[in-house]
Amino acid sequence: MIFIDTCFGKKSDVMPIWMMRQAGRYLAEYKATRARAGDFLSLCKDYKLASEVTLQPVDILDFDAAIIFSDILVVPLELGLPLRFEAGEGPVFDEIISSEIDVEKLNINAASKLIYVYDAIKLTREKLASNKALIGFCGAPWTLATYMIEGKGSKTYAKSKRMIYENPALAHKLLAKITEVLKEYCENQIKAGANAIQIFDSWANALEPSAYLEFAWKYIQDLASYLKTKYPHIAIIAFPKGVGGFIECLDAKIDVLGVDWSTPLQVAAKTPYVLQGNLEPCRLYSKKAIKEGVEIIKELTKDKAHIFNLGHGILPDIPVENVRYLIDCVRNA
Amino acid sequence: MIFIDTCFGKKSDVMPIWMMRQAGRYLAEYKATRARAGDFLSLCKDYKLASEVTLQPVDILDFDAAIIFSDILVVPLELGLPLRFEAGEGPVFDEIISSEIDVEKLNINAASKLIYVYDAIKLTREKLASNKALIGFCGAPWTLATYMIEGKGSKTYAKSKRMIYENPALAHKLLAKITEVLKEYCENQIKAGANAIQIFDSWANALEPSAYLEFAWKYIQDLASYLKTKYPHIAIIAFPKGVGGFIECLDAKIDVLGVDWSTPLQVAAKTPYVLQGNLEPCRLYSKKAIKEGVEIIKELTKDKAHIFNLGHGILPDIPVENVRYLIDCVRNA
Repeated sequence: MIFIDTCFGKKSDVMPIWMMRQAGRYLAEYKATRARAGDFLSLCKDYKLASEVTLQPVDILDFDAAIIFSDILVVPLELGLPLRFEAGEGPVFDEIISSEIDVEKLNINAASKLIYVYDAIKLTREKLASNKALIGFCGAPWTLATYMIEGKGSKTYAKSKRMIYENPALAHKLLAKITEVLKEYCENQIKAGANAIQIFDSWANALEPSAYLEFAWKYIQDLASYLKTKYPHIAIIAFPKGVGGFIECLDAKIDVLGVDWSTPLQVAAKTPYVLQGNLEPCRLYSKKAIKEGVEIIKELTKDKAHIFNLGHGILPDIPVENVRYLIDCVRNA
Repeated sequence: MIFIDTCFGKKSDVMPIWMMRQAGRYLAEYKATRARAGDFLSLCKDYKLASEVTLQPVDILDFDAAIIFSDILVVPLELGLPLRFEAGEGPVFDEIISSEIDVEKLNINAASKLIYVYDAIKLTREKLASNKALIGFCGAPWTLATYMIEGKGSKTYAKSKRMIYENPALAHKLLAKITEVLKEYCENQIKAGANAIQIFDSWANALEPSAYLEFAWKYIQDLASYLKTKYPHIAIIAFPKGVGGFIECLDAKIDVLGVDWSTPLQVAAKTPYVLQGNLEPCRLYSKKAIKEGVEIIKELTKDKAHIFNLGHGILPDIPVENVRYLIDCVRNA
């Protein structure tokens, strides 16, 4: 698999490419399957339909890797927090974590309840061509904790940050518990057939550098070490979004570092990892901007193993034709 | 004025301190005046009340500088876009900019309509002690443009970024027009008595580095050069939020660079500017976290002129007592 070889540092003639949110609303086929499933969470929980939308972008657009269709918030859900998705509002947890008792009540066996994810991975791996990689994933402990403390997306993350400054012991207790569940969750994804695991730390940018290292990266280190020791052949990718100011401090047993569009690849190249990224997703609105963006990334990575990706997820209103054009630009001179 | 001396590089025994949003809801006195004014925009437009809330934090907490109470969006408002503030939703423009004609219709004489800001500055400067500085401000062209293109706050800034990639000429036309108005607006603030001008580029982080330089920083350079050439004794502060990954590329005729909490001061110190910042605002929830945060900043800036500030605005639920404690930590060993 060119994707996995590249994760482990092997430079190929043509960069492997996949896109965050490649199974998503820009594809008519995704929207059709989603309509059959009903709501978003039902699609996550139906392993056959989840597998179907996972395979669509590879079948239709020939990406080098599939990423299992799911949501990072299935973990807090199975930890015991009822989850709903509100139109316009995004995910909402009506119960939140604010005390020691709340943390103790969380179901430490959450990973055993995520069978629908493992079944989707198993089925997808069976159907996927052998030269295509299948990526499993999870939200990073800090990002999951913010949702569990805030109850929904936040502009300020004030509740979560108040906890780390006012009651750091409680925050660490919550983060450690999430991390233990994630170890088992990722391990089960690997056993089901995932060839790589991506850890999404979407709200990395909410923390100042010292707090990020103590309350977020530390748990990614722990999770990555656990997986790497047991499964050295599985590629581990971390994607801490918005940490360009201190990316050089990020040391862990990962193979690949995902780079968002606001961090120059030249800066990220100071880390020892294979890089993944980082085309600005809005360049996909314009073919001229796509071509220019791809050329810049090709030039910056010409001597290195590099995984082509966007700097964040693809937006729903991007024309599929432009995605085809992007892939063509990446693969051809 | 210790604040202005520091902006120009003079190291003092005690760091000058002010806080973004220091005239704000954490102060009971602010809330009382705001209630008398009615809605937020009425407070901005009533120069006596705007001056009153500007002076409150200096009178009550003894900051070294006042920042005129206003909003960056009064400029788009006077450019001709009706503005309303919706509870929970934030600012909303019902008319947005999407075409050449929209840009042409904007009122190039907007600065002449902002008399209420100049009157508030004049009155405040009269009342403020002579050792306290008065800061005027504006939103940076890019940040103002995003509001004018999106119509409201955005998670993705997709409309604005679509414009810069699909129709860069239109984006430049809009940005240039905003910049011309800002030159006159800032100049009038200086004539009314402002001792410094801060340029807030709150959505700097939305752009990839190359686009930031071309569509955002370029216009800050233009504005700063204009003001610096005519008013060399006025301190110019730029605050581009979230650009830690490429802060070293930011060259302009400014005196001070505002640093957000996610950018390490050590990284920002590679620029030639006096720095301002960057205590994580949520540290204000905890005295222990305040003390520790202040000590780190003192240690990092012990040999340099530095303006103490938060890395972003103060949050409404911070106890005033903790702000007093912060000021005490900054002023005393």
